[in-house]
Amino acid sequence: MVLSREHSISYDRIRAVEWIDGGIRLIDQRLLPARFEHLQIRNVVDAGRAIHDMVVRGAPAIGVTAAYAVVLAARDRYKENPNGWQQAIQPDLNLLAEARPTAVNLRWAVEHMRGVINAGIAGDPVPRLLSEAQRIHAEDIAANRRMGELGAGLIEKGSGVLTHCNTGALATGGYGTALGVVRAGYAAGKIKEVYADETRPWLQGARLTAWELVQEGIPATLIADSAATYLMKQGKVAWVIVGADRIAANGDTANKIGTYMTAVAARHHGVKFMVVAPTSTVDLATSDGSAIPIETRAEAEVLNFAGTRTSPEGMRAWNPAFDITPAELIDAIVTEKGVVTNPTRDKLLAMMQK
Amino acid sequence: MVLSREHSISYDRIRAVEWIDGGIRLIDQRLLPARFEHLQIRNVVDAGRAIHDMVVRGAPAIGVTAAYAVVLAARDRYKENPNGWQQAIQPDLNLLAEARPTAVNLRWAVEHMRGVINAGIAGDPVPRLLSEAQRIHAEDIAANRRMGELGAGLIEKGSGVLTHCNTGALATGGYGTALGVVRAGYAAGKIKEVYADETRPWLQGARLTAWELVQEGIPATLIADSAATYLMKQGKVAWVIVGADRIAANGDTANKIGTYMTAVAARHHGVKFMVVAPTSTVDLATSDGSAIPIETRAEAEVLNFAGTRTSPEGMRAWNPAFDITPAELIDAIVTEKGVVTNPTRDKLLAMMQK
Repeated sequence: MVLSREHSISYDRIRAVEWIDGGIRLIDQRLLPARFEHLQIRNVVDAGRAIHDMVVRGAPAIGVTAAYAVVLAARDRYKENPNGWQQAIQPDLNLLAEARPTAVNLRWAVEHMRGVINAGIAGDPVPRLLSEAQRIHAEDIAANRRMGELGAGLIEKGSGVLTHCNTGALATGGYGTALGVVRAGYAAGKIKEVYADETRPWLQGARLTAWELVQEGIPATLIADSAATYLMKQGKVAWVIVGADRIAANGDTANKIGTYMTAVAARHHGVKFMVVAPTSTVDLATSDGSAIPIETRAEAEVLNFAGTRTSPEGMRAWNPAFDITPAELIDAIVTEKGVVTNPTRDKLLAMMQK
Repeated sequence: MVLSREHSISYDRIRAVEWIDGGIRLIDQRLLPARFEHLQIRNVVDAGRAIHDMVVRGAPAIGVTAAYAVVLAARDRYKENPNGWQQAIQPDLNLLAEARPTAVNLRWAVEHMRGVINAGIAGDPVPRLLSEAQRIHAEDIAANRRMGELGAGLIEKGSGVLTHCNTGALATGGYGTALGVVRAGYAAGKIKEVYADETRPWLQGARLTAWELVQEGIPATLIADSAATYLMKQGKVAWVIVGADRIAANGDTANKIGTYMTAVAARHHGVKFMVVAPTSTVDLATSDGSAIPIETRAEAEVLNFAGTRTSPEGMRAWNPAFDITPAELIDAIVTEKGVVTNPTRDKLLAMMQK
């Protein structure tokens, strides 16, 4: 299905991940915005591959997908071995948890589901695990709504904001983290214009954020990533608003490559910097940013685009998928439990213990 | 002709612009690195269009092209009207000068040639004007060589450097400005690794700088523009080395969009920042950066990637082709007349009057 603006999908109907027909239905985000197609996932191996290949991406959406994937794994292992499935499923859980290294929501969801399994389930595990996955999914959407309100509350009326990567309905259970704040802020008249970094190499901004914003008619302008600093110089941006793949205990934040660029530029220009993520993204077991593993993806993502070789044969590339923004460049971390300004280890811990 | 690494062209044989067969032969830089093709330009209108459409780009290469284009215009106007050609050519000169607004070398070359015309030429003007254009071309190459030595002299042995856009043989009469410094610095053992920003939206880094570096076997790594800041954080870069499209009297420098991003990031990380450009790029008539006109190019360049539509219908884009790096973020300006460190209006004027 090719979508034009006339056949738009409201964000509350965009579901990157859904449990449907006894399996996981994913929007294939590699094809957007040219094509809107779904992929039906029926087993845990395909789920792991879909996460690895970025059919589904965005830390919260990956977490929800992994939770549903545990249901698929449990169904198969229980069928094979109704008495020993709890042992047999362990390698599946490990495989899932390792599909991508940086976003902690993936591990959080898998470990949460493992905890439910290890606590003991009598008989067919599917109903119990499915209900748990659906609860994770629903709570993610509720968290996004709450973060939208909290984040919008920080923004002055009539502001321009810059966002990086895609953190919308496509990146989450629904609604969005940073883009949820944009939605809530626009609805409340706080935000008058959104600038979106195109977000090379995968173009999440150009393809996915632009798609969500156009669907909704929020005034939006796409820029080359490297123009973000110059945009701030023009005084067009009051806040940079981004998501997170992992927030360490001290507030250091891993997010899509380029986030750190926007944070350094924001500080230079006196622009405020907001990180929006559910508490499932906060990893108190990781002391600071230096302990967060950064995924390096294939050189081909930088050397090529859409099957077109853009760089000459013999050229190498460095392709870190994420970078670390140190806590001292962050003005506010917004979770569903509240807002932490000028984040520190103590403040973040206090918020998590609420 | 498709070039593989096995059929490489040495940089001293790469000529973006050449006077050949009574016309201008341009490498069509829109097609590199996939195809290496020439375009033969036979009149001034086609020359203006080639500059506007970026068949040839890079401030010095545009200047050289414009000088040769004046020869083409003079040939035609003289043929039409041997007595009044000096008047008839004036609109051609204005058209050429306005083909692109930011790079001052274009105007510099046109005004230089206009001065020669207005000083009076008896009979057929072609020999006199062609010799003047060839002198401009030869002087640009000589200036690049000299800047290469001067710039390399600033770099410590074994350094990693970052460059933005393409400033090599393809961007100049030959050899290169910032990439000339890279060439000289690599040959002298000063530079051990070059990082090249891909330089969206036109991908001059991915397509052209990568092509020049691979041809020569200089160790080079391509990065997404937004990864440059994170690269500096890793301590991999001692110098950012860039070219310029116009340097104002106070040292403020217009260069390819994204240059300002690298300058802000460099200062944040204690990385040094070098601008390399011939004195034809220095515009003492422009007081500071705020007076430099910044070309805004078509939104389509950002909404598409390498000829493929990447962003949804209905999305807008902001596409400034250049940005301004203020003098206070520049550690050294290198011209063929010498090096100005921590540039100021007085220092720059003194260098120009040498």
